Amino acid sequence: MARIVMKFGGTSMAGTERIRRVAGIVKRQQEAGHEVAVVVSAMAGETDRLVDFCREASPLYDPAEYDVVVASGEQVTAGLLALTLQAMGCKARSWLGWQLPFRTDEAYSKARIGDIETQALLASMAVGEIAVIPGFQGVSSDNRVATLGRGGSDTSAVAVAAAVKADRCDIYTDVDGVYTTDPRIVAKARKLNRITYEEMLELASVGSKVLQTRSVSLAMKEGVRVQVLSSFIDENAVPADDLPGTMIVSDEELEGIDMERQLITGIAADKNEAKVTLTRIADRPGTVAAIFGPLADASINVDMIIQNVAKDKGETDVTFTVPTADLARATALLEERKEEIGFFRMIADDNVAKISIVGVGMRSHAGIAATMFSTLAERGINIQAISTSEIKISVLINADETELAVRLLHTAYELDAKDAA
Amino acid sequence: MARIVMKFGGTSMAGTERIRRVAGIVKRQQEAGHEVAVVVSAMAGETDRLVDFCREASPLYDPAEYDVVVASGEQVTAGLLALTLQAMGCKARSWLGWQLPFRTDEAYSKARIGDIETQALLASMAVGEIAVIPGFQGVSSDNRVATLGRGGSDTSAVAVAAAVKADRCDIYTDVDGVYTTDPRIVAKARKLNRITYEEMLELASVGSKVLQTRSVSLAMKEGVRVQVLSSFIDENAVPADDLPGTMIVSDEELEGIDMERQLITGIAADKNEAKVTLTRIADRPGTVAAIFGPLADASINVDMIIQNVAKDKGETDVTFTVPTADLARATALLEERKEEIGFFRMIADDNVAKISIVGVGMRSHAGIAATMFSTLAERGINIQAISTSEIKISVLINADETELAVRLLHTAYELDAKDAA
Repeated sequence: MARIVMKFGGTSMAGTERIRRVAGIVKRQQEAGHEVAVVVSAMAGETDRLVDFCREASPLYDPAEYDVVVASGEQVTAGLLALTLQAMGCKARSWLGWQLPFRTDEAYSKARIGDIETQALLASMAVGEIAVIPGFQGVSSDNRVATLGRGGSDTSAVAVAAAVKADRCDIYTDVDGVYTTDPRIVAKARKLNRITYEEMLELASVGSKVLQTRSVSLAMKEGVRVQVLSSFIDENAVPADDLPGTMIVSDEELEGIDMERQLITGIAADKNEAKVTLTRIADRPGTVAAIFGPLADASINVDMIIQNVAKDKGETDVTFTVPTADLARATALLEERKEEIGFFRMIADDNVAKISIVGVGMRSHAGIAATMFSTLAERGINIQAISTSEIKISVLINADETELAVRLLHTAYELDAKDAA
Repeated sequence: MARIVMKFGGTSMAGTERIRRVAGIVKRQQEAGHEVAVVVSAMAGETDRLVDFCREASPLYDPAEYDVVVASGEQVTAGLLALTLQAMGCKARSWLGWQLPFRTDEAYSKARIGDIETQALLASMAVGEIAVIPGFQGVSSDNRVATLGRGGSDTSAVAVAAAVKADRCDIYTDVDGVYTTDPRIVAKARKLNRITYEEMLELASVGSKVLQTRSVSLAMKEGVRVQVLSSFIDENAVPADDLPGTMIVSDEELEGIDMERQLITGIAADKNEAKVTLTRIADRPGTVAAIFGPLADASINVDMIIQNVAKDKGETDVTFTVPTADLARATALLEERKEEIGFFRMIADDNVAKISIVGVGMRSHAGIAATMFSTLAERGINIQAISTSEIKISVLINADETELAVRLLHTAYELDAKDAA
């Protein structure tokens, strides 16, 4: 017997028929002898509908009241899944955030998770009741509804799994696992059986939408075994305890299993960055602070930065990237400070893409970056900026070359599936 | 300064624009210097949508999980009204059933109200915060969501008004008060400025949809001054403290104000009753119990009963009415017991209407019933059954004659408005 937390996203919960399908998948795990808790999202589209109502009611909405409204979507699906499980002959009950309680701080609409009370929950699970928990919501110490922010249900599931010391946290989505890259771009993309927390974290942060970054980070911190699965596979075709998803494991665990692993695990493309270049700024101390200080104060996240070597007259150019959504705000902020910063011209460009290669293998192998640069250079793809972490290298290129670059790199790092060749 | 509880129904809360209108009405009462709590229904249609989801999930649904799902509709409107009031510059916050708490028993989906905690609520209202409370919902002693049953928001409002010792409970609906009869049937119907609890209760129980019976009964028991108002009037055309609705008052209070009151206050027509006749049953002890015992056990509410005088062979006929919704169940039940009861034939007829005249004046005046019977007889309207209470006389007639009968009686009891003559 194992204790399992399962999580189903909005696409899986969209309507009676799909909820019935989810209930079947859940029931099967219980029948396999496991204690089961299920965390659910709102029906696809429902949270957007509720957010729109809030915006119409008050453009500058009070996040505490916003949370009262938007948390209702998960309350509905939690009740409906409990009812559907009961109709299939299972014992089941819902546990709303304030009932567990699932405690959070008072940062309404982006609350941080505190501790989760598990005594009543575990007692219920121990007598064979399936616990259905609405994702995304908790209760603050002021006894008010608090939500974790968009996409927070993955994080709810991982937090519940950590609290009940679950053997596994199975995240069911509309894809059947984590791929070496987006299969819509590269037909030869392969599904990964395993990936490390660090790799998943880097991939999530550069555009892989499979899991929310925050949930991966929490799983890594708490040591929760997370598995990504599809809720649309024919679950009867595979054994209940060997579902064909992607397991997220620690680096040590992966080392033990997979000695011959690839150097690069995955490749991601992110078109949500925009490039800003300030020309002819003074090459002296304080200039960089004058640029990036105000951006940081406005909570605009600057990612890649390159400063050219000063040419003549002690002048230089600075290029950096910001999220596309913040581009207008960033350029307005800098334009206001044009005198103070002392730049000649500002050039904004949102027709760029960030291509990232991720893999813990690059820690111990040299030459990974060189392969990336030469592969792109051979086909005339110009690299506009570079940033790296310990297990990731990102380059900024023209957005029109995104798919080409991903395909070239996928082949260069020998990630192409053999059977799809 | 007064303390006011206001209640808005689903039609008034249906969408952003209407909620804004409601917020305007609420704000005006606060600006008149009052402490204000508002009880809201779900948006029109939303509860039906949620009930449908529950039925699809599980035809024999667990009422506790049903309550989790359907209570979400009022949660949404409560949050949205708080946000809208804030956007208009008012201080406002929502108080969900479990937050107050608004305690109930464990009869999920038809819970009875227990006590309502008011300390935090009154403290918040005292500092000028408008309290927005979702109707229809509370929390059971098992710490689970419990709803009061359809239409329960009126009752929530009266219960809150009683708990906070409100000076008034204003129920805003899509009509502008209680009329002598349905204005869609009788153009000369008059709006009543005042009506007694007893009269309102009788009218509510015989088809006047203005207020839920249960809320009137609670208001009478707790002595809550209830006022029925329209949320669609131009509220700026009338002073905030003299709104043109119908005030529900005690018999004593009305006596003091209105010495020259009408004998009859209102006339209602109810087409939701059906007639059942069992012919040639034995006229002996035990037969009546054999008929009505099983119906009572099945919670089928029998209203009017007439047993004809035994003719020959010690046989007689029995006629009675049941709610149309229960007709099929009632006839099936009786058919099963045909031998035991010993009837010859069962005749069911749902083409009947119950016409009721209501008025506390009939307590002290003879001849009221005679006027009713002769008025109908003069136009050849056949009375199929009669039932009475201290302040109500109901007759059962052919449904096709409903409107005619109501108009004749409205004139006979001198209820027609003079200016609309």
